[in-house]
Amino acid sequence: MDKLSVEHLLGIKYLNPNDIDLIFKTADHFKEVINRPIKKVPSLRDITIANLFFENSTRTKLSFELAEKRLSADVINFSAGQSSVKKGETLIDTVNNILSMKVDIVVMRHGNVGAGVFLSKHVDAKIINAGDGTHEHPTQALLDSYSIREKLGTVKGKKIVIVGDILHSRVALSNIFALQLQGAQVKVCGPTTLIPKYISSLGVEVETNLKKALEWCDVANVLRVQHERMDIKYFPSTREYTQLFGINNEILDNLGKKIVIMHPGPINRGVEITSSVADSDQSIILNQVENGVAVRMAVIYLLAQQIKR
Amino acid sequence: MDKLSVEHLLGIKYLNPNDIDLIFKTADHFKEVINRPIKKVPSLRDITIANLFFENSTRTKLSFELAEKRLSADVINFSAGQSSVKKGETLIDTVNNILSMKVDIVVMRHGNVGAGVFLSKHVDAKIINAGDGTHEHPTQALLDSYSIREKLGTVKGKKIVIVGDILHSRVALSNIFALQLQGAQVKVCGPTTLIPKYISSLGVEVETNLKKALEWCDVANVLRVQHERMDIKYFPSTREYTQLFGINNEILDNLGKKIVIMHPGPINRGVEITSSVADSDQSIILNQVENGVAVRMAVIYLLAQQIKR
Amino acid sequence: MDKLSVEHLLGIKYLNPNDIDLIFKTADHFKEVINRPIKKVPSLRDITIANLFFENSTRTKLSFELAEKRLSADVINFSAGQSSVKKGETLIDTVNNILSMKVDIVVMRHGNVGAGVFLSKHVDAKIINAGDGTHEHPTQALLDSYSIREKLGTVKGKKIVIVGDILHSRVALSNIFALQLQGAQVKVCGPTTLIPKYISSLGVEVETNLKKALEWCDVANVLRVQHERMDIKYFPSTREYTQLFGINNEILDNLGKKIVIMHPGPINRGVEITSSVADSDQSIILNQVENGVAVRMAVIYLLAQQIKR
Repeated sequence: MDKLSVEHLLGIKYLNPNDIDLIFKTADHFKEVINRPIKKVPSLRDITIANLFFENSTRTKLSFELAEKRLSADVINFSAGQSSVKKGETLIDTVNNILSMKVDIVVMRHGNVGAGVFLSKHVDAKIINAGDGTHEHPTQALLDSYSIREKLGTVKGKKIVIVGDILHSRVALSNIFALQLQGAQVKVCGPTTLIPKYISSLGVEVETNLKKALEWCDVANVLRVQHERMDIKYFPSTREYTQLFGINNEILDNLGKKIVIMHPGPINRGVEITSSVADSDQSIILNQVENGVAVRMAVIYLLAQQIKR
Repeated sequence: MDKLSVEHLLGIKYLNPNDIDLIFKTADHFKEVINRPIKKVPSLRDITIANLFFENSTRTKLSFELAEKRLSADVINFSAGQSSVKKGETLIDTVNNILSMKVDIVVMRHGNVGAGVFLSKHVDAKIINAGDGTHEHPTQALLDSYSIREKLGTVKGKKIVIVGDILHSRVALSNIFALQLQGAQVKVCGPTTLIPKYISSLGVEVETNLKKALEWCDVANVLRVQHERMDIKYFPSTREYTQLFGINNEILDNLGKKIVIMHPGPINRGVEITSSVADSDQSIILNQVENGVAVRMAVIYLLAQQIKR
Repeated sequence: MDKLSVEHLLGIKYLNPNDIDLIFKTADHFKEVINRPIKKVPSLRDITIANLFFENSTRTKLSFELAEKRLSADVINFSAGQSSVKKGETLIDTVNNILSMKVDIVVMRHGNVGAGVFLSKHVDAKIINAGDGTHEHPTQALLDSYSIREKLGTVKGKKIVIVGDILHSRVALSNIFALQLQGAQVKVCGPTTLIPKYISSLGVEVETNLKKALEWCDVANVLRVQHERMDIKYFPSTREYTQLFGINNEILDNLGKKIVIMHPGPINRGVEITSSVADSDQSIILNQVENGVAVRMAVIYLLAQQIKR
């Protein structure tokens, strides 16, 4: 059987195109599974997985938890609020303690860039990065690409624009890496203050005019506006943002073609996207959520295959 | 096999007497199950249930969770504190996201009246209302009636008085609907400021004198005093409330008959009811809790039978 | 088969040496189980366990939860934050309600001394004390002794010093009882203000000089510094504490022998113990965590054998 080239899923930048192919083919299988009446497989009955969420999350945590349960793994949850982290314990100690209880795989969300990489060097378990600061969110990028492939047949050669606050988005960075790896063309579109200087060094063009960006693309991946970041300093106000970068039916109807609309959620209806666009047949937002479970099952399954038993 | 006349359990007011009969007969079976050494049945191995609690709850949530696990369903929990709801996401988006992960049944507690009805019109899953604002709490009313039936043989023809803050009680309203549907007579008893104007339009008599109410009834269902509501505005103080509407041995001993005492919990011992009454052999308070699991298993099981597989 | 002499695990002081032997032999078996690929046994499929944590905990709760799941018990979790306790309900009512849902075993952590004993007299379930105030934490003491036995072959005749804030430590008290029961010699070492007056009546010597204490012992069990207690009143400052009672390589290297280092966690690296000591081959800190799951499986399993079915 094929194997991943990596021992952990720390970021898309560590993967090669074969890894992504393998994950997607495995996810195809699990997507069938979760659409059967009995949505479970007994594959990982011998695996214990710890979900360590040092930052709040709803859908990512639920999606991982469902993926794990449908693989029949034993699951323990640990969130920062309940944790010894508050008592001044170091990350390595917290995780080593959990691992001493015989945990095989750690799914971790952490506020610090590189937390997953750091951990993978110091503890003896498979690490899956479920978001590290503003850095990477690899399973989100994988499910996004998987959803494009499902809708358009392939990612190769497609034109994708990522719209919004690129500077603070781990979703954007992981998506750029994943899309380029599969031979897609990527542009970003947003307020210049929210686009990082290094973006051109990644081979990504910047388009500050939303209309032009949408005319160019096959797919628009619309990022969530982080209200807590707007209305301060160099950020536009929410109202200005919506006027310049909000996606509505009017702008889409004038494109002369039907582009695919994506959003990682949760949606601010009427801010970065209107309700009618989010709920239209161009939108694959709920398919992304559905595919998230299958893609996460695939990643967990493939890493678990590497564990000696 | 018999089927429920409804597709969701949104409120008692949508049920007919046959539905209640069917739920009770099914609960009889599950009550046997949970009193066996192995308290589980494999019936719902193919069903995933999400418990969405947008308001705090202890016993209702635990009771549903145990009911679901004893039916062998897969369970995911979601409470408001962890949720995207705080990020301004709409209820439909939150729930649609969860459903895209292939959830079959949603058990929801929500602060808004009608939240369950609203949801049932917009998402593709079975909805069970676990309390919507001051409106309905149908599984509580079903377990209350089930407990009366168990104690007295039948609900039909019995006289039940509901004592306390009727105005803010979803337990009271659902109980009134359930008891009338089964041919019981219902009165309410409490401070006039805590009895809604529309009560007489429901065919329910008001009795503000506790002694007279108890002399009339076979069963007293004593509501919990919400401390956070007392001692303000038009509410009596806790002390006044206890003097006028608190149930103690003295008042019960002078009735010349033994009435059944119920309480939905959690009890304020010494406020709406004394400890000796709560723990007496007239009290079926703990039976209510036990029956809650069996009745909820029945409701979930019957709704799950309607799901196409 | 052998049986425990007690019906609950409320404290080490209620156990006899045979009980400890039986728990350790049973834990030996479960330690093999959790080191197998499939870490579960189906033993307690018919048992429902409620974890009631009225105080925060990370590792103890996770350890119990894993132990329960690996015995295939059904598990429900209840923590104070979500609970009716906040609504003024009594402990007995809270627990009786949970028990009415057919719970067989209650694992409880509570801030009050004697909470477990009190509960065991009033409710019909097996009680396991997971920490009651500053009183006992019996499973911690059992896993500590089990880890000494594993490292040194036996506890009998060994010299153990417990270092730190003895006054506020349930870990210290339970360890003293457990070690003496097995024929070990115990000393305590710490600031005189943090050593209770009654310690000598337990047959425990006080040694306020850390160097002398370490020269005497085979094993040092280093308690966690509770930052929230330091720097106030009669407590030393954290810096003073580290100077007088912190364990580092320098002091250990000068002993002329290798003692075993233990810590119940979470560690304050650089305060009560340096990183190099915590991570050295003298340290069995992570073994303690691993053994915790096996020992808790043993305790739960043995108490469950007493339940009539």
